[in-house]
Amino acid sequence: MVFAVVVTIDVRPETIDEFTAGLHANAVATRAEPGCLRFDVLRTTDDPHRFVLYELYADEDAFFVGHRQAPHYPAWVTLCERCVPPGGRRNVYAVPAFPDEMTAHD
Amino acid sequence: MVFAVVVTIDVRPETIDEFTAGLHANAVATRAEPGCLRFDVLRTTDDPHRFVLYELYADEDAFFVGHRQAPHYPAWVTLCERCVPPGGRRNVYAVPAFPDEMTAHD
Repeated sequence: MVFAVVVTIDVRPETIDEFTAGLHANAVATRAEPGCLRFDVLRTTDDPHRFVLYELYADEDAFFVGHRQAPHYPAWVTLCERCVPPGGRRNVYAVPAFPDEMTAHD
Repeated sequence: MVFAVVVTIDVRPETIDEFTAGLHANAVATRAEPGCLRFDVLRTTDDPHRFVLYELYADEDAFFVGHRQAPHYPAWVTLCERCVPPGGRRNVYAVPAFPDEMTAHD
């Protein structure tokens, strides 16, 4: 079943340029993973230092194994260690409530 | 610019069947709005009574005007009043961090 990860990230303001560049590289690399179906990168309207990632994977393993063992993943972890304060990155894991119609727009 | 709404909803457990049916109707109707680009309905893996909606609209007006003035919207508000405790529905508003590449998968 499709597996969704919604990530909220609060970035140290003084690292925003470094973080944004690294986030972009991570998005491009993750979208190229065979198990990644979608990777949207958003910024909240009331706080420009808060990002939201909406990630869809073919299944849970595509995230926990495929994504986290991808060659580009360690650079992302290192980036977050530099740019995100403790507790500033929060993952929510979810699955489709109506699996037969994940969205009418696919 | 594309406008994203990420909604987290905690549902009173005793109303879960009513809420799920109403949420489904709301999803189908919202997807039919001309300004709605995507409406994914998810349930978190660690709490089956917590839903996450990932909604994309053509622009901010498509949500705040088009969606909220749609004929089906009042039924959704009424449903949430019955099934969601105070503070149990939280909206996050966001825009693409990299507008030229909302996702590589579109």
